[in-house]
Amino acid sequence: MNNTIELLLSHRSIRKFTDEPVEQSVVDTLVKCGQAAATSSNVQAVTAIQVHDTAKREKLAALAGGQPYVASAGAFLVYCADLNRPRIACEKEAGEFSPGMTEHFIIATVDVALAAQNTVVAAESLGLGICYIGGLRNNPAEVSELLGLPDHVYPVFGLCLGHPAQDPQVKPRMPLEAVLMHDQYDTEQFNGPMAEYDETVREYYKSRTSGKKDSSWSQEMKALVGKESRPHMKGFLNKRQLMVK
Amino acid sequence: MNNTIELLLSHRSIRKFTDEPVEQSVVDTLVKCGQAAATSSNVQAVTAIQVHDTAKREKLAALAGGQPYVASAGAFLVYCADLNRPRIACEKEAGEFSPGMTEHFIIATVDVALAAQNTVVAAESLGLGICYIGGLRNNPAEVSELLGLPDHVYPVFGLCLGHPAQDPQVKPRMPLEAVLMHDQYDTEQFNGPMAEYDETVREYYKSRTSGKKDSSWSQEMKALVGKESRPHMKGFLNKRQLMVK
Repeated sequence: MNNTIELLLSHRSIRKFTDEPVEQSVVDTLVKCGQAAATSSNVQAVTAIQVHDTAKREKLAALAGGQPYVASAGAFLVYCADLNRPRIACEKEAGEFSPGMTEHFIIATVDVALAAQNTVVAAESLGLGICYIGGLRNNPAEVSELLGLPDHVYPVFGLCLGHPAQDPQVKPRMPLEAVLMHDQYDTEQFNGPMAEYDETVREYYKSRTSGKKDSSWSQEMKALVGKESRPHMKGFLNKRQLMVK
Repeated sequence: MNNTIELLLSHRSIRKFTDEPVEQSVVDTLVKCGQAAATSSNVQAVTAIQVHDTAKREKLAALAGGQPYVASAGAFLVYCADLNRPRIACEKEAGEFSPGMTEHFIIATVDVALAAQNTVVAAESLGLGICYIGGLRNNPAEVSELLGLPDHVYPVFGLCLGHPAQDPQVKPRMPLEAVLMHDQYDTEQFNGPMAEYDETVREYYKSRTSGKKDSSWSQEMKALVGKESRPHMKGFLNKRQLMVK
């Protein structure tokens, strides 16, 4: 155990921020930390768009399904998977860009997440709070239009950064046995831990909401994967020439 | 600047490891650090399969396109995007799982990358070296069979962990201006930095290979996106009931 590991284990999302701004030099450093993450074949398929404009921030907060902290956080970044930049590089070298490969889509999406997570760790090491905003995928076409994203680029998620004005507890995670397997996948391995975790989650919600929220992890999962989720995504991505083949 | 930020900025992939093993308690801690990362709607769609079996490790090294460090690293994890566990939870609650959503595929893939990157940062904070193995996607069906992965699960990448037996330099990244934009996407913004970076990369390769490798970033990108890449991925994923709609 060391400070970095303690930091990682103490993560929780922050959704209330003070008015204190995040200096641009700090944001620059955080994004550079993101760039230092591993990247598949050095493609660096990540573009972060920092949104300063107040009206745009408010629109994004609405497009994300009404998340006011998108507007109120000290800084807000939209993380885009970007195959447009390698396309330009490829064509500069008289290559013929091969659009729409699912593999390139995976590469770019993973690149974005690795970079963003480094940015998050760096931010938290400076005492800042963060919150990922997957809600941007509620309206990816509108987000793309607002930010002028070209084809071969999509907004994966947003990231709020700021000085925390709340101190929520760390959300308990699944027991290790359920997620770390050995030599082969074993469905049996997570039956017990899952039942145990269901009760942990129920207690967590109850204590956070003074008993109002009474739900297990399995119940939450039923709500999440027991119905279609953002069914527009495939059509949107295909239109952007992503994930076509 | 602090120790964590210095650590993040000093990342490089390690492909040669000493024989010193990585204690199981350390691997457990690293995976727990991964679990502590943000996860969309708390789905925790990550299963890490630690491969101990020597024969399996050697097969995986071959399946990844001949990467011997997959077999020789102190520890090796296969990171899987796992929608099978939430499926089981959903069905336990008498829900009807909605398979094949592209949105769920994105959620799970991002979850995996965020978790893995936390594991990487924790590992490096302990002086271990790491290398991501995207090459597992060369043969995802064979990897899945070897590890007994069920439907709704796919191997996103592998991760080598171990005590470094080499000390490579940090690979230079794109100038910040090319990847951090403000308020809108601006293609013009990366023309200059990209040309500059082409030369940085050329010098980097030359100095690492005593002049043998003479290639710019744009030339590398032509090789990467100027042709089809792992064209089996879409069919493989669809077969596994991922990313169908």
